[in-house]
Amino acid sequence: PSPVYAKTELDVWTLMNQVSASVGAVNLGQGYMSFPPKDFIKRAAQEALNENTHNQYAPPRGRPGLLEQLGSRFTDRFGRSIDPSKEVSVHAGANEALLSVFTAFLEHGKDQEVILMEPAFDQYTPNVIMAGGKPVYVPLRVMSDKDPRESVISSDDWKLDLAEFEAAITDKTRIVVLNTPHNPVGKVFSREELAQIGAIAEKHNLLIVADEVYEHLTYGVEHVSIATLPGMWERTVTVGSAGKLFGVTGWRVGWAVGPEEFISATLSAHTRIVFTSNTPLQEGVASAFRQSPEHDFFEVQRKEYEARRNRLMGVFDDIGLPYVVPKGAYYLLVNAAKLKIPDDFEFPDFIIERGENFKLVYFFIKYFGVSGIPPTEFYSAPHKELANDYVRFAFCKTDEGLEEAAVCLQKIK
Amino acid sequence: PSPVYAKTELDVWTLMNQVSASVGAVNLGQGYMSFPPKDFIKRAAQEALNENTHNQYAPPRGRPGLLEQLGSRFTDRFGRSIDPSKEVSVHAGANEALLSVFTAFLEHGKDQEVILMEPAFDQYTPNVIMAGGKPVYVPLRVMSDKDPRESVISSDDWKLDLAEFEAAITDKTRIVVLNTPHNPVGKVFSREELAQIGAIAEKHNLLIVADEVYEHLTYGVEHVSIATLPGMWERTVTVGSAGKLFGVTGWRVGWAVGPEEFISATLSAHTRIVFTSNTPLQEGVASAFRQSPEHDFFEVQRKEYEARRNRLMGVFDDIGLPYVVPKGAYYLLVNAAKLKIPDDFEFPDFIIERGENFKLVYFFIKYFGVSGIPPTEFYSAPHKELANDYVRFAFCKTDEGLEEAAVCLQKIK
Ligand SMILES: CSCCC(=O)C(=O)O
Ligand SMILES: CSCCC(=O)C(=O)O
Repeated sequence: PSPVYAKTELDVWTLMNQVSASVGAVNLGQGYMSFPPKDFIKRAAQEALNENTHNQYAPPRGRPGLLEQLGSRFTDRFGRSIDPSKEVSVHAGANEALLSVFTAFLEHGKDQEVILMEPAFDQYTPNVIMAGGKPVYVPLRVMSDKDPRESVISSDDWKLDLAEFEAAITDKTRIVVLNTPHNPVGKVFSREELAQIGAIAEKHNLLIVADEVYEHLTYGVEHVSIATLPGMWERTVTVGSAGKLFGVTGWRVGWAVGPEEFISATLSAHTRIVFTSNTPLQEGVASAFRQSPEHDFFEVQRKEYEARRNRLMGVFDDIGLPYVVPKGAYYLLVNAAKLKIPDDFEFPDFIIERGENFKLVYFFIKYFGVSGIPPTEFYSAPHKELANDYVRFAFCKTDEGLEEAAVCLQKIK
Repeated sequence: PSPVYAKTELDVWTLMNQVSASVGAVNLGQGYMSFPPKDFIKRAAQEALNENTHNQYAPPRGRPGLLEQLGSRFTDRFGRSIDPSKEVSVHAGANEALLSVFTAFLEHGKDQEVILMEPAFDQYTPNVIMAGGKPVYVPLRVMSDKDPRESVISSDDWKLDLAEFEAAITDKTRIVVLNTPHNPVGKVFSREELAQIGAIAEKHNLLIVADEVYEHLTYGVEHVSIATLPGMWERTVTVGSAGKLFGVTGWRVGWAVGPEEFISATLSAHTRIVFTSNTPLQEGVASAFRQSPEHDFFEVQRKEYEARRNRLMGVFDDIGLPYVVPKGAYYLLVNAAKLKIPDDFEFPDFIIERGENFKLVYFFIKYFGVSGIPPTEFYSAPHKELANDYVRFAFCKTDEGLEEAAVCLQKIK
């Protein structure tokens, strides 16, 4: 095998799920829903399966019914008329949409660079590299009067230093990836921040890849798509996810939206990567979109997540560990600097070799029975220390699960 | 966009489906089933959706239930004990399995070569190139006493010239791709042929990528997996497809089977390409496997396809166009050299620019109302002329569809 893939290091998701399962911990690690999708969503997919066409290949761009729904959704959200036969492509999950965009816009052997803001979702780096690009990392910086090891801060306090961003751009830079609402920080970039980032992207003629898979989950603030800012549509591909939008992370249906020239290249890459996304669940998603208004689904769902967020924040308020208040998405970054790990606590080698932050998360799993994700996995080596004190917990979980976690964590007091 | 993907040329499947639909032709082009899957298969997926776990992320390697089924299936078929936790990975279709294998075994910038036997399924070439490899083409040669423009020949008559194969191997060759049963020829490689190919692969230390997605469809001959030949397991990754096996091409569930070292690298590539395949349909496939014996499913299905094959061969016997008798898969290569296209028949530019063979297929669609696929799309430029006389028709179609095609084609007489 090629040396790149011969390395046997497990992805963080599989690793942490395995550790979590091995001790029967409450799993607040990977961001999947521990509650079922609403009945109408599940039934939409079940009914789709009755139709033979829905069991056979979809066109690589996507099933017409889903494209139509996405066209009207983005026409509404972007305030411009989106032609789904040209400006939308359906993918095997948002992840494959991102890989397709990178593949479409980067070339091997040209040293083209892609700016990633850290913490950066762990798939960005390998996806950029597979497509031939070189990731360049710019960490978000905590800019707060308060000490995050002592006090609750806001996800707004994690900021992109614009001078640092611009300094990272070279004549080889092609793309900047922008994730809003942000995983794992929960930051929702403001219109002003987006305008500043957009202005720099414009000045250096960069393509913006906007990963907006959590667009539907914001708490007290508005999600703004950078593609809606003046002059930005022309340089942006926006990526979204049915798995996130409908609480069905296993369905693997995502999409990319942008100008025809961009989407046609993205579609051409997609066609060669997976040929097409699965048909029955594309049809299920199309039908779920059609039925959403009658269930007031997106607003009901948003409120449910807000309640889960508040519940999980309450748990950490109670035990006295500070965190970053997320304005969006479904993760809570908890700062556990205060926590003392007993000197005689033992760690297995496969954890030790992945650094301090993995030890901290492992301790939560083994000692408290509550699992999270080590956010250092979202950082490049030189910046990992920025995340050493943090554990990411997901709150896309049942009330019972969150309650159980609360009980387990009492032990901290 | 990168020049590779900016090209707007449509894939042959989308193109031909569009042309076919535009004239309401009987679509015997793309190899999807125009009949529904058996009820138990459809219900297996519908029931899977009831379980929340089955709506959320699967482990990248695959759902445990499906891995277990694949483990026992390949233990039976390969006559050796297969450990599904190490020697199997589940993919987003066989296509993504192939891309994952290529990605795992090839490196960009090293000029590594991959031998493809022509006709070669049209995705192989871009998949090899994306992974950094260079395709090297060795055409199967028609070795028959009969003239294929005049007489029916057997798919056995399409042979790999072993000297030509070996001459194509250089010190840069890493992989040979072997497709059996073969699309579009319908050739089922014999044990002897496989042993000869295997010996050459061994001599030059090549990895064999065995695309066996049509393993379940042979007519009067036995399908032999090259991995079962002495010494071959150690150098082979075998790829399969639930879409083909269960008649649900839109489900996008495939797999790779091979030695642990190979599969772990393949899995690592897969994890970065799509992260994981869709969960509900993986569970549907697992359940369909479990229920197959009680329906004697694979044997019943095989007989149904054999009847469809015989019916379609009869159609061409009747109108007097010779073909290649397929011993496997579900395609019929018809030799239409005899057919005279009227001088005043008009072709649109998007067909003319893709060559003579596209014109022939276009003529079938427009004039007879029956669509096929131009097999030149399965050849590299220097070899396209080998396929100019052929049209590929798929017989994974309803009796009514085959009957309708028969009626349309009467016009030929
Ligand atoms: C590749 S795991 C994806 C789940 C997720 O988005 C997360 O937990 O961050
Ligand atoms: C990528 S289309 C696949 C269908 C098929 O295998 C065929 O028609 O050859």
